[in-house]
Amino acid sequence: MNIALDMMGGDFAPLEAVKGIEIYLQQKNAATKLFLIGDETAIQKLLPQHAIPADDITLIHAAQVIEMYEHPTKALKEKQQSSIAIGFQLLATGKADAFISAGNTGAMMVGALYSIKAIEGVMRPTIGAYMPKENGNLGLLLDVGLNADCKPENLLQFAVLGSLFAQHILQVEKPRVGLLNLGEEEGKGNILTQATFPLLKNNTLINFIGNIEGRDVLLDKADVIVCEGFTGNVILKFAESIYDIVQRRRIDDEHFNRFNFENYGGVPVLGVNKPVIIGHGISHATAFKNMILIAERMIEKDLSGKIRESFVMRDQ
Amino acid sequence: MNIALDMMGGDFAPLEAVKGIEIYLQQKNAATKLFLIGDETAIQKLLPQHAIPADDITLIHAAQVIEMYEHPTKALKEKQQSSIAIGFQLLATGKADAFISAGNTGAMMVGALYSIKAIEGVMRPTIGAYMPKENGNLGLLLDVGLNADCKPENLLQFAVLGSLFAQHILQVEKPRVGLLNLGEEEGKGNILTQATFPLLKNNTLINFIGNIEGRDVLLDKADVIVCEGFTGNVILKFAESIYDIVQRRRIDDEHFNRFNFENYGGVPVLGVNKPVIIGHGISHATAFKNMILIAERMIEKDLSGKIRESFVMRDQ
Repeated sequence: MNIALDMMGGDFAPLEAVKGIEIYLQQKNAATKLFLIGDETAIQKLLPQHAIPADDITLIHAAQVIEMYEHPTKALKEKQQSSIAIGFQLLATGKADAFISAGNTGAMMVGALYSIKAIEGVMRPTIGAYMPKENGNLGLLLDVGLNADCKPENLLQFAVLGSLFAQHILQVEKPRVGLLNLGEEEGKGNILTQATFPLLKNNTLINFIGNIEGRDVLLDKADVIVCEGFTGNVILKFAESIYDIVQRRRIDDEHFNRFNFENYGGVPVLGVNKPVIIGHGISHATAFKNMILIAERMIEKDLSGKIRESFVMRDQ
Repeated sequence: MNIALDMMGGDFAPLEAVKGIEIYLQQKNAATKLFLIGDETAIQKLLPQHAIPADDITLIHAAQVIEMYEHPTKALKEKQQSSIAIGFQLLATGKADAFISAGNTGAMMVGALYSIKAIEGVMRPTIGAYMPKENGNLGLLLDVGLNADCKPENLLQFAVLGSLFAQHILQVEKPRVGLLNLGEEEGKGNILTQATFPLLKNNTLINFIGNIEGRDVLLDKADVIVCEGFTGNVILKFAESIYDIVQRRRIDDEHFNRFNFENYGGVPVLGVNKPVIIGHGISHATAFKNMILIAERMIEKDLSGKIRESFVMRDQ
């Protein structure tokens, strides 16, 4: 399998991406080929220092970079030679089976939607975030910002997408799906969650366990928690700030250390036709290594194919 | 001033309320009279053990109690002799100037809206929650669950109500108002926050500083943070769970210790005609003492009057 990696994305590019590849190669899957996209000279210079044999990778020069502050659609249109644009070209033409970047999130989303497109039947692709449970497990909260306004049908689709990811990639059997809400009982909620509850309850593709309150997000009640992207984004950033505070206050605690979101190595865009993984802007080596591992797993398990099957079934 | 206290509300009634009064009396305001509403025999028995002189309080018997699980409207209608119903009767007839309870939140809200009613011009009264900032300050987040679905005008009113509370009760000069959102820049957000931003920006009653992200809630960027009650409720309960985790993991940290929400002693219902304070179900003595102090301050400063003035002005 061929995995394309944007070497210019993130605050510490390309060094941390190179370091991540170095770690990855120590446990390399023989069947994986890495395409490194970015400033050839800059990357070339780093490779020998990081024990990356030229045979293990293919370098693809990108003359441009989309910066973090740039307008996604405009930048992608104007910078056809950027690492992100080239990554999606490789993906769309089948030369790569997955594309990873810690760069401009908006550009990654726009690129995914316009080049490899949403899977038929998926109204709104989504991105989630991992939530570290106190018992050591990992939950998936989605959407976390891509879809600020949602309809009940969108939340139902997030539940299906999240379940498939949890089952095949996080290896959770029969993932429990919870609906983020302001009360536990059926009937509680705002207009959106009240209308979403019966859709989740009556859907046979998912294992719906009911409403989940804010206080339950970090407990191991559900493996997949669905919400619209507004609340999800606020919760994610609030949780990130908890980690910042814990760091600043020099609290060393096993559970709170797991709030270090960059360790999880990025989240997939769920609902598009091929594996696309978006990393945090502050991604370090471990994050890059983990993103490659997740991409491998998504390709191996053919997650996109499994999503297509579920959504075809749903249409019948 | 006369403050009515529901002695039967909360998980540790009436003992913790009695203990709270005991602490309060050590720093008693001479002008304050306390009306204790509840099971006369049960309370009577506790008073001598807690150094509460009969002269300092007036006991008012309530033969019924509205339990935490009861349906608010139904319970209030059927239990006219409950401590909550009697409290609102005292408030509505002017015998009490403020009413405090750690009992059934829904019943407290229904009681407030039906007996003393919303201030003219206030579309939706609201309740907020304190957010402990890392620098030691306290912010007010509102709404936290009363109004799950909101219009932009509701959020604007929450901003005005929260500002008046922060200014007169929390003693913050020119409170900074932030709009909880998923991005900092103007134009970001869901339909609701995009439409709310210009209303806040153009309103001269408040000191609007722009959007506040989830990661900024615990920083001292804004004194008052407004959002609809769905997101506010999820954030509040998430923050409460952080405190639970900190406790369970025996982390002793000054900042996280301030996440102990019961210490703040309850939040006022903002936008109704008289001071009503709702405590957490798990309120202990300190919380009850603090609720009495907040009630005193709300009466002294005539917060309800100041809200009335602002909303009359707004109508002109």
